[in-house]
Amino acid sequence: MKKHKPLILVTNDDGISAPGIKALVEVMKTLGDVIVVAPDKPQSGMGHAITINSTLRINKVNIYGVKQEYSCTGTPVDCVKIAVNKILNRKPDLCVSGINHGSNMSINVIYSGTMSAAVEGAIEGIPSIGFSLCDFSIDADFSSSKKIVKTIAEKVLKNKMPKDVCLNVNIPNLKYEHLKGIKVCRQARANWIEELDERMDPSGKPYFWLTGKFENYDKGKDDTDVWALDNGYVSVVPTQFDMTAHTTIKEITKWKL
Amino acid sequence: MKKHKPLILVTNDDGISAPGIKALVEVMKTLGDVIVVAPDKPQSGMGHAITINSTLRINKVNIYGVKQEYSCTGTPVDCVKIAVNKILNRKPDLCVSGINHGSNMSINVIYSGTMSAAVEGAIEGIPSIGFSLCDFSIDADFSSSKKIVKTIAEKVLKNKMPKDVCLNVNIPNLKYEHLKGIKVCRQARANWIEELDERMDPSGKPYFWLTGKFENYDKGKDDTDVWALDNGYVSVVPTQFDMTAHTTIKEITKWKL
Repeated sequence: MKKHKPLILVTNDDGISAPGIKALVEVMKTLGDVIVVAPDKPQSGMGHAITINSTLRINKVNIYGVKQEYSCTGTPVDCVKIAVNKILNRKPDLCVSGINHGSNMSINVIYSGTMSAAVEGAIEGIPSIGFSLCDFSIDADFSSSKKIVKTIAEKVLKNKMPKDVCLNVNIPNLKYEHLKGIKVCRQARANWIEELDERMDPSGKPYFWLTGKFENYDKGKDDTDVWALDNGYVSVVPTQFDMTAHTTIKEITKWKL
Repeated sequence: MKKHKPLILVTNDDGISAPGIKALVEVMKTLGDVIVVAPDKPQSGMGHAITINSTLRINKVNIYGVKQEYSCTGTPVDCVKIAVNKILNRKPDLCVSGINHGSNMSINVIYSGTMSAAVEGAIEGIPSIGFSLCDFSIDADFSSSKKIVKTIAEKVLKNKMPKDVCLNVNIPNLKYEHLKGIKVCRQARANWIEELDERMDPSGKPYFWLTGKFENYDKGKDDTDVWALDNGYVSVVPTQFDMTAHTTIKEITKWKL
């Protein structure tokens, strides 16, 4: 019997022409049939945004020589929705997003377009992984990331995924031989300390750039993603979309609302 | 000793001129000093998006006659960030978002700009609540919602909030006397079954509207928000931003990545 070839959906948030998605597609081509549906422009920080107040378009492209590839005018989450519901005839076996140029560890998971695409994949019932390299530069070296991506994607194709969960994978910016290993861990409790960089436009009116400093408040030691990355490990955080704070239901019920 | 008057930050995702935020401001004026920082245009479905690839502006307005009020060019999450880090001198005692025109029950929490603003409040360490009325219309009747908002906001001001948690409050579209009560519950496991409504532009090129049907897969009975709302209760879901699927860490560790 012919072995079923996995169908793999690839997306990202840096846009379809970013080097990170090129690296991801190259790995996925070795694992199955690849469909790319990715934003036509950078969509960093778009979180789980969807396009409901305006329209969406998709355009066929031929960048990576895969089965089907489209750029999409929408957000990363729109890309997953339009791929699953309009472009594909069957549910993919795997949805991968990235490789993001820059870390999505800790609280960044919630702002990240890369991870939101993976979370949307999980909502749609697809084993999904978001990959990020801890290097923001356009010239980032994805060679060690590609090996990690392959290892983890193969494991997910083999083991499937726990129900309603996807993986948030962050890769330190190190040579492969310097990586300490892969660590399954939890999202650290950290924050951005915002600094709104105020500037004046030519007519003397103020405007702001949102910027800030990442601050880790987490007292946990070796069980967080921040610790793993700081210590040379690839971090893998199983990530869910049930946002209920289950342990507090009892306490709040006592308020007698 | 003079009693400390609460400082209350109000935002929303339907935009600063929406009837829902007017209703919310009216209630908050009875509870403390109110600051409004809200989007200058509708931002529904923006999820936890932040503006990092372009700039932000704020404009002083005088719509509601409160202590300070600004419209902001950004997303609901941007509004919270800019309020806390640029406009306010001290951390507010309460951050409220809404009242949204339309439900944010179940999976909608993740797409919702209203709830993302409340989640951002929690990330910033502010007791925060997102309010939504299960009626999308612009002429929605907020009179019973206002009573519920007051009850819940007073309880939060009194009890504070469990750490790293905010509340997702959805209110059925019923007269106050027909409401069955307020139920603390969990986010139901439900989904949108997307239908991409394909149309042709005047030059014959296709475009899409993202639309769909809400489908509740949850086998739970009276412990979910969908059940509560269907049965005439106000739903209150304690909502967290730790997205780690803690219970699966052990299982995924066994994969030996």
